[in-house]
Amino acid sequence: MDSTKRTDETAINITESKSVKGKATPNQHGGSKRGVAIFDFVLRVCALVAALVATITMGTTDQTLPFFTQFFQFQASYDDLPTFTFFVIANAIASGYLVLSLPFSIVCIVRPHAAGARLLLLIFDIVLVAFTTAAAASAAAIVYLAHNGNSNTNWLAICQQFDDFCQRVSGAVVASLIAAVVFVFLVLLSAVALRRH
Amino acid sequence: MDSTKRTDETAINITESKSVKGKATPNQHGGSKRGVAIFDFVLRVCALVAALVATITMGTTDQTLPFFTQFFQFQASYDDLPTFTFFVIANAIASGYLVLSLPFSIVCIVRPHAAGARLLLLIFDIVLVAFTTAAAASAAAIVYLAHNGNSNTNWLAICQQFDDFCQRVSGAVVASLIAAVVFVFLVLLSAVALRRH
Repeated sequence: MDSTKRTDETAINITESKSVKGKATPNQHGGSKRGVAIFDFVLRVCALVAALVATITMGTTDQTLPFFTQFFQFQASYDDLPTFTFFVIANAIASGYLVLSLPFSIVCIVRPHAAGARLLLLIFDIVLVAFTTAAAASAAAIVYLAHNGNSNTNWLAICQQFDDFCQRVSGAVVASLIAAVVFVFLVLLSAVALRRH
Repeated sequence: MDSTKRTDETAINITESKSVKGKATPNQHGGSKRGVAIFDFVLRVCALVAALVATITMGTTDQTLPFFTQFFQFQASYDDLPTFTFFVIANAIASGYLVLSLPFSIVCIVRPHAAGARLLLLIFDIVLVAFTTAAAASAAAIVYLAHNGNSNTNWLAICQQFDDFCQRVSGAVVASLIAAVVFVFLVLLSAVALRRH
Protein backbone atom coordinates (compact mmCIF):
# COMPACT_ATOMS: atom_id res chain seq x y z
CA MET A 1 0.00 0.00 0.00
CA ASP A 2 2.73 2.41 1.06
CA SER A 3 4.91 1.40 -1.86
CA THR A 4 2.06 1.95 -4.34
CA LYS A 5 1.40 5.40 -2.96
CA ARG A 6 5.07 6.34 -3.30
CA THR A 7 5.13 5.11 -6.89
CA ASP A 8 2.02 7.18 -7.61
CA GLU A 9 3.67 10.26 -6.14
CA THR A 10 6.79 9.66 -8.19
CA ALA A 11 4.67 9.30 -11.28
CA ILE A 12 2.87 12.54 -10.54
CA ASN A 13 6.16 14.26 -9.86
CA ILE A 14 7.54 13.07 -13.17
CA THR A 15 4.51 14.25 -15.12
CA GLU A 16 4.55 17.56 -13.28
CA SER A 17 8.21 18.17 -13.94
CA LYS A 18 7.64 17.12 -17.53
CA SER A 19 4.78 19.54 -18.02
CA VAL A 20 6.76 22.35 -16.38
CA LYS A 21 9.77 21.60 -18.55
CA GLY A 22 7.59 21.31 -21.64
CA LYS A 23 6.02 24.70 -21.06
CA ALA A 24 9.12 26.52 -19.83
CA THR A 25 11.21 26.67 -23.00
CA PRO A 26 8.65 28.19 -25.39
CA ASN A 27 7.38 30.54 -22.66
CA GLN A 28 10.86 31.82 -21.93
CA HIS A 29 11.54 32.17 -25.65
CA GLY A 30 8.16 33.86 -26.26
CA GLY A 31 8.82 36.14 -23.26
CA SER A 32 12.16 37.43 -24.58
CA LYS A 33 10.60 37.84 -28.03
CA ARG A 34 7.71 39.76 -26.45
CA GLY A 35 10.22 41.97 -24.61
CA VAL A 36 11.91 42.76 -27.94
CA ALA A 37 8.50 43.49 -29.49
CA ILE A 38 7.54 45.88 -26.66
CA PHE A 39 10.92 47.65 -26.98
CA ASP A 40 10.27 47.88 -30.74
CA PHE A 41 6.89 49.55 -30.04
CA VAL A 42 8.46 52.07 -27.60
CA LEU A 43 11.23 52.92 -30.11
CA ARG A 44 8.59 53.40 -32.82
CA VAL A 45 6.70 55.90 -30.64
CA CYS A 46 10.00 57.76 -29.97
CA ALA A 47 10.76 57.90 -33.71
CA LEU A 48 7.21 59.12 -34.39
CA VAL A 49 7.61 61.97 -31.88
CA ALA A 50 11.01 62.92 -33.36
CA ALA A 51 9.74 62.84 -36.95
CA LEU A 52 6.62 64.86 -36.04
CA VAL A 53 8.71 67.46 -34.20
CA ALA A 54 11.03 67.71 -37.22
CA THR A 55 8.11 68.12 -39.64
CA ILE A 56 6.22 70.68 -37.55
CA THR A 57 9.30 72.71 -36.56
CA MET A 58 10.48 72.98 -40.17
CA GLY A 59 6.99 73.42 -41.61
CA THR A 60 6.01 76.31 -39.33
CA THR A 61 9.34 78.17 -39.57
CA ASP A 62 8.67 81.57 -41.03
CA GLN A 63 10.64 84.70 -40.20
CA THR A 64 9.94 88.20 -41.50
CA LEU A 65 12.61 90.76 -40.89
CA PRO A 66 11.49 94.01 -39.22
CA PHE A 67 12.90 96.18 -42.03
CA PHE A 68 11.90 96.27 -45.71
CA THR A 69 12.90 98.10 -48.86
CA GLN A 70 10.67 99.80 -51.36
CA PHE A 71 10.34 96.68 -53.48
CA PHE A 72 10.11 93.69 -51.21
CA GLN A 73 10.02 92.54 -47.63
CA PHE A 74 12.76 90.21 -46.36
CA GLN A 75 11.18 86.93 -45.41
CA ALA A 76 12.50 83.41 -44.94
CA SER A 77 10.40 80.25 -44.85
CA TYR A 78 11.12 76.59 -45.48
CA ASP A 79 9.82 76.61 -49.05
CA ASP A 80 12.48 79.11 -50.16
CA LEU A 81 14.90 76.18 -50.42
CA PRO A 82 13.91 72.97 -52.26
CA THR A 83 15.99 70.90 -49.81
CA PHE A 84 13.88 72.05 -46.89
CA THR A 85 10.69 71.26 -48.80
CA PHE A 86 12.02 67.72 -49.38
CA PHE A 87 12.87 67.58 -45.67
CA VAL A 88 9.28 68.40 -44.66
CA ILE A 89 7.79 65.90 -47.15
CA ALA A 90 10.21 63.10 -46.14
CA ASN A 91 9.59 63.57 -42.42
CA ALA A 92 5.82 63.77 -42.97
CA ILE A 93 5.97 60.47 -44.89
CA ALA A 94 8.10 58.94 -42.11
CA SER A 95 5.55 60.09 -39.50
CA GLY A 96 2.69 58.63 -41.53
CA TYR A 97 4.52 55.32 -41.98
CA LEU A 98 5.27 55.14 -38.24
CA VAL A 99 1.59 55.63 -37.37
CA LEU A 100 0.63 52.88 -39.84
CA SER A 101 3.36 50.56 -38.50
CA LEU A 102 2.17 50.76 -34.86
CA PRO A 103 -0.65 48.18 -35.37
CA PHE A 104 1.87 45.76 -36.92
CA SER A 105 4.18 46.33 -33.95
CA ILE A 106 1.24 45.46 -31.63
CA VAL A 107 0.66 42.26 -33.65
CA CYS A 108 4.33 41.38 -32.93
CA ILE A 109 3.69 41.91 -29.19
CA VAL A 110 0.51 39.78 -29.15
CA ARG A 111 1.97 37.06 -31.38
CA PRO A 112 5.76 37.05 -30.79
CA HIS A 113 6.31 34.26 -33.32
CA ALA A 114 4.72 36.08 -36.29
CA ALA A 115 7.89 36.41 -38.37
CA GLY A 116 5.99 37.66 -41.43
CA ALA A 117 4.88 40.92 -39.80
CA ARG A 118 8.41 41.45 -38.45
CA LEU A 119 10.03 40.94 -41.87
CA LEU A 120 7.50 43.34 -43.45
CA LEU A 121 8.36 45.98 -40.83
CA LEU A 122 12.10 45.40 -41.36
CA ILE A 123 11.86 45.88 -45.15
CA PHE A 124 9.99 49.19 -44.80
CA ASP A 125 12.19 50.30 -41.87
CA ILE A 126 15.37 49.94 -43.92
CA VAL A 127 13.87 52.04 -46.74
CA LEU A 128 12.83 54.66 -44.17
CA VAL A 129 16.40 54.67 -42.71
CA ALA A 130 17.68 55.77 -46.12
CA PHE A 131 14.80 58.24 -46.54
CA THR A 132 15.10 60.05 -43.18
CA THR A 133 18.92 60.03 -43.33
CA ALA A 134 18.83 61.60 -46.80
CA ALA A 135 16.42 64.30 -45.60
CA ALA A 136 18.43 65.07 -42.46
CA ALA A 137 21.82 65.03 -44.23
CA SER A 138 20.80 67.26 -47.15
CA ALA A 139 19.11 69.75 -44.81
CA ALA A 140 22.19 69.68 -42.55
CA ALA A 141 24.43 70.52 -45.54
CA ILE A 142 22.27 73.55 -46.37
CA VAL A 143 22.00 74.66 -42.74
CA TYR A 144 25.80 74.46 -42.43
CA LEU A 145 26.06 76.67 -45.52
CA ALA A 146 23.50 79.11 -44.10
CA HIS A 147 25.48 79.34 -40.85
CA ASN A 148 29.00 79.62 -42.26
CA GLY A 149 28.63 80.53 -45.90
CA ASN A 150 31.37 79.62 -48.36
CA SER A 151 33.99 82.06 -49.54
CA ASN A 152 35.12 79.89 -52.49
CA THR A 153 31.70 79.97 -54.11
CA ASN A 154 30.69 83.43 -52.82
CA TRP A 155 27.70 82.02 -50.94
CA LEU A 156 27.12 84.34 -47.99
CA ALA A 157 25.95 83.18 -44.57
CA ILE A 158 22.29 84.20 -44.27
CA CYS A 159 22.03 83.32 -40.57
CA GLN A 160 23.40 86.72 -39.60
CA GLN A 161 20.08 88.17 -40.72
CA PHE A 162 17.75 85.23 -40.21
CA ASP A 163 19.02 83.98 -36.85
CA ASP A 164 15.64 82.80 -35.53
CA PHE A 165 14.96 80.95 -38.79
CA CYS A 166 18.35 79.23 -38.64
CA GLN A 167 17.92 78.14 -35.04
CA ARG A 168 14.55 76.53 -35.70
CA VAL A 169 15.82 74.82 -38.85
CA SER A 170 18.85 73.45 -36.94
CA GLY A 171 16.48 72.07 -34.30
CA ALA A 172 14.42 70.34 -36.97
CA VAL A 173 17.56 68.76 -38.47
CA VAL A 174 18.61 67.42 -35.05
CA ALA A 175 15.11 65.94 -34.50
CA SER A 176 15.24 64.26 -37.91
CA LEU A 177 18.72 62.85 -37.17
CA ILE A 178 17.35 61.36 -33.93
CA ALA A 179 14.52 59.76 -35.92
CA ALA A 180 17.07 58.30 -38.38
CA VAL A 181 19.18 56.84 -35.55
CA VAL A 182 16.06 55.29 -33.95
CA PHE A 183 15.20 53.74 -37.33
CA VAL A 184 18.68 52.15 -37.46
CA PHE A 185 18.07 50.64 -34.00
CA LEU A 186 14.63 49.40 -35.12
CA VAL A 187 16.22 47.52 -38.03
CA LEU A 188 18.92 46.04 -35.75
CA LEU A 189 16.23 44.94 -33.26
CA SER A 190 14.16 43.27 -35.98
CA ALA A 191 17.25 41.52 -37.38
CA VAL A 192 18.21 40.16 -33.94
CA ALA A 193 14.60 39.01 -33.36
CA LEU A 194 14.53 37.25 -36.75
CA ARG A 195 17.85 35.58 -36.00
CA ARG A 196 16.46 34.04 -32.77
CA HIS A 197 13.42 32.70 -34.63
CA MET B 1 11.85 -16.62 -57.90
CA ASP B 2 10.35 -13.91 -60.07
CA SER B 3 8.22 -12.66 -57.23
CA THR B 4 11.20 -12.51 -54.82
CA LYS B 5 13.25 -10.50 -57.32
CA ARG B 6 10.44 -8.00 -57.79
CA THR B 7 10.15 -7.55 -54.02
CA ASP B 8 13.90 -6.95 -53.79
CA GLU B 9 13.71 -4.33 -56.50
CA THR B 10 10.85 -2.63 -54.71
CA ALA B 11 12.82 -2.66 -51.49
CA ILE B 12 15.84 -1.14 -53.21
CA ASN B 13 13.64 1.46 -54.86
CA ILE B 14 12.15 2.38 -51.50
CA THR B 15 15.54 2.72 -49.81
CA GLU B 16 16.87 4.70 -52.76
CA SER B 17 13.94 7.08 -52.77
CA LYS B 18 14.26 7.33 -49.00
CA SER B 19 17.92 8.21 -49.14
CA VAL B 20 17.29 10.75 -51.89
CA LYS B 21 14.46 12.28 -49.90
CA GLY B 22 16.52 12.26 -46.70
CA LYS B 23 19.40 14.09 -48.34
CA ALA B 24 17.35 16.45 -50.48
CA THR B 25 15.90 18.78 -47.85
CA PRO B 26 19.08 20.01 -46.11
CA ASN B 27 20.95 20.12 -49.41
CA GLN B 28 18.23 22.20 -51.04
CA HIS B 29 18.12 24.48 -48.00
CA GLY B 30 21.92 24.85 -47.96
CA GLY B 31 21.87 25.36 -51.72
CA SER B 32 19.40 28.24 -51.59
CA LYS B 33 21.35 29.75 -48.67
CA ARG B 34 24.56 29.40 -50.71
CA GLY B 35 22.82 31.07 -53.65
CA VAL B 36 21.87 34.00 -51.42
CA ALA B 37 25.47 34.16 -50.10
CA ILE B 38 26.92 34.23 -53.64
CA PHE B 39 24.44 36.96 -54.64
CA ASP B 40 25.52 38.85 -51.50
CA PHE B 41 29.18 38.60 -52.60
CA VAL B 42 28.36 39.86 -56.12
CA LEU B 43 26.36 42.80 -54.71
CA ARG B 44 29.25 43.63 -52.39
CA VAL B 45 31.68 43.79 -55.34
CA CYS B 46 29.20 46.06 -57.22
CA ALA B 47 28.92 48.37 -54.18
CA LEU B 48 32.71 48.41 -53.88
CA VAL B 49 33.10 49.47 -57.52
CA ALA B 50 30.43 52.19 -57.11
CA ALA B 51 31.96 53.54 -53.87
CA LEU B 52 35.47 53.53 -55.36
CA VAL B 53 34.26 55.34 -58.49
CA ALA B 54 32.51 57.94 -56.28
CA THR B 55 35.62 58.47 -54.14
CA ILE B 56 38.06 58.72 -57.02
CA THR B 57 35.82 60.88 -59.23
CA MET B 58 35.18 63.36 -56.42
CA GLY B 59 38.72 63.22 -55.06
CA THR B 60 40.43 63.96 -58.38
CA THR B 61 38.04 66.70 -59.49
CA ASP B 62 39.99 69.88 -59.92
CA GLN B 63 39.19 72.57 -62.43
CA THR B 64 41.18 75.71 -63.07
CA LEU B 65 39.52 78.34 -65.20
CA PRO B 66 41.56 79.64 -68.18
CA PHE B 67 41.26 83.28 -67.07
CA PHE B 68 42.55 84.89 -63.91
CA THR B 69 42.62 88.32 -62.27
CA GLN B 70 45.51 90.18 -60.78
CA PHE B 71 44.95 88.70 -57.33
CA PHE B 72 43.93 85.09 -57.70
CA GLN B 73 43.24 82.32 -60.13
CA PHE B 74 39.77 80.79 -60.30
CA GLN B 75 40.00 77.21 -59.23
CA ALA B 76 37.48 74.67 -57.95
CA SER B 77 38.30 71.43 -56.19
CA TYR B 78 36.41 69.13 -53.85
CA ASP B 79 37.99 70.55 -50.67
CA ASP B 80 36.51 74.00 -51.30
CA LEU B 81 33.26 72.70 -49.83
CA PRO B 82 33.24 70.77 -46.51
CA THR B 83 30.31 68.65 -47.72
CA PHE B 84 32.40 67.30 -50.60
CA THR B 85 35.27 66.53 -48.22
CA PHE B 86 32.84 64.55 -46.05
CA PHE B 87 31.62 62.82 -49.22
CA VAL B 88 35.14 61.68 -50.13
CA ILE B 89 35.89 60.47 -46.59
CA ALA B 90 32.55 58.63 -46.24
CA ASN B 91 32.92 56.87 -49.58
CA ALA B 92 36.54 55.96 -48.82
CA ILE B 93 35.42 54.42 -45.51
CA ALA B 94 32.62 52.57 -47.31
CA SER B 95 35.14 51.20 -49.86
CA GLY B 96 37.48 50.09 -47.07
CA TYR B 97 34.65 48.40 -45.18
CA LEU B 98 33.51 46.60 -48.34
CA VAL B 99 37.02 45.23 -48.95
CA LEU B 100 37.20 44.01 -45.34
CA SER B 101 33.70 42.48 -45.56
CA LEU B 102 34.48 40.35 -48.62
CA PRO B 103 36.23 37.58 -46.58
CA PHE B 104 33.18 37.38 -44.26
CA SER B 105 30.96 37.12 -47.32
CA ILE B 106 33.13 34.22 -48.55
CA VAL B 107 32.72 32.55 -45.12
CA CYS B 108 28.94 32.80 -45.66
CA ILE B 109 29.34 31.06 -49.07
CA VAL B 110 31.53 28.25 -47.67
CA ARG B 111 29.41 27.78 -44.52
CA PRO B 112 25.86 28.82 -45.45
CA HIS B 113 24.56 28.14 -41.91
CA ALA B 114 27.02 30.50 -40.15
CA ALA B 115 24.40 32.97 -38.87
CA GLY B 116 26.93 34.84 -36.70
CA ALA B 117 28.97 36.16 -39.65
CA ARG B 118 25.75 37.14 -41.42
CA LEU B 119 24.41 39.06 -38.42
CA LEU B 120 27.76 40.85 -38.06
CA LEU B 121 27.65 41.88 -41.73
CA LEU B 122 24.02 43.02 -41.36
CA ILE B 123 24.80 45.27 -38.36
CA PHE B 124 27.67 47.00 -40.17
CA ASP B 125 25.73 47.15 -43.45
CA ILE B 126 22.85 49.05 -41.87
CA VAL B 127 25.27 51.60 -40.39
CA LEU B 128 26.91 51.96 -43.82
CA VAL B 129 23.46 52.48 -45.43
CA ALA B 130 22.99 55.55 -43.23
CA PHE B 131 26.59 56.67 -43.86
CA THR B 132 26.61 56.46 -47.68
CA THR B 133 23.07 57.86 -47.94
CA ALA B 134 24.06 60.84 -45.78
CA ALA B 135 27.15 61.48 -47.95
CA ALA B 136 25.21 61.17 -51.22
CA ALA B 137 22.23 63.26 -50.04
CA SER B 138 24.28 66.13 -48.60
CA ALA B 139 26.48 66.27 -51.72
CA ALA B 140 23.37 66.15 -53.90
CA ALA B 141 21.89 69.14 -52.03
CA ILE B 142 25.07 71.15 -52.65
CA VAL B 143 25.32 70.05 -56.30
CA TYR B 144 21.69 71.09 -56.84
CA LEU B 145 22.55 74.50 -55.37
CA ALA B 146 25.65 74.75 -57.59
CA HIS B 147 23.57 73.96 -60.67
CA ASN B 148 20.53 76.14 -59.97
CA GLY B 149 21.56 78.62 -57.30
CA ASN B 150 18.92 80.15 -55.03
CA SER B 151 17.50 83.59 -55.56
CA ASN B 152 16.01 83.83 -52.04
CA THR B 153 19.39 83.51 -50.36
CA ASN B 154 21.40 85.19 -53.14
CA TRP B 155 23.49 82.07 -53.69
CA LEU B 156 24.54 82.13 -57.35
CA ALA B 157 24.85 79.06 -59.55
CA ILE B 158 28.59 78.39 -59.94
CA CYS B 159 28.14 75.70 -62.59
CA GLN B 160 27.97 78.34 -65.34
CA GLN B 161 31.70 78.89 -64.80
CA PHE B 162 32.77 75.49 -63.46
CA ASP B 163 30.80 73.25 -65.81
CA ASP B 164 33.40 70.45 -65.97
CA PHE B 165 33.73 70.44 -62.17
CA CYS B 166 29.94 70.24 -61.76
CA GLN B 167 29.59 67.37 -64.24
CA ARG B 168 32.21 65.26 -62.48
CA VAL B 169 30.75 65.99 -59.05
CA SER B 170 27.26 65.03 -60.28
CA GLY B 171 28.69 61.75 -61.58
CA ALA B 172 30.28 61.04 -58.21
CA VAL B 173 26.95 61.69 -56.44
CA VAL B 174 25.15 59.27 -58.77
CA ALA B 175 27.81 56.59 -58.11
CA SER B 176 27.44 57.09 -54.35
CA LEU B 177 23.65 56.83 -54.61
CA ILE B 178 24.06 53.52 -56.48
CA ALA B 179 26.32 52.28 -53.65
CA ALA B 180 23.67 53.32 -51.08
CA VAL B 181 20.91 51.47 -52.95
CA VAL B 182 23.10 48.33 -53.20
CA PHE B 183 23.69 48.56 -49.42
CA VAL B 184 19.90 48.62 -48.86
CA PHE B 185 19.58 45.45 -50.95
CA LEU B 186 22.46 43.82 -49.01
CA VAL B 187 20.61 44.44 -45.72
CA LEU B 188 17.35 43.07 -47.18
CA LEU B 189 19.20 39.97 -48.46
CA SER B 190 20.81 39.33 -45.07
CA ALA B 191 17.46 39.77 -43.30
CA VAL B 192 15.75 37.29 -45.61
CA ALA B 193 18.62 34.81 -45.16
CA LEU B 194 18.42 35.16 -41.35
CA ARG B 195 14.63 34.64 -41.49
CA ARG B 196 15.07 31.31 -43.28
CA HIS B 197 17.55 30.08 -40.71
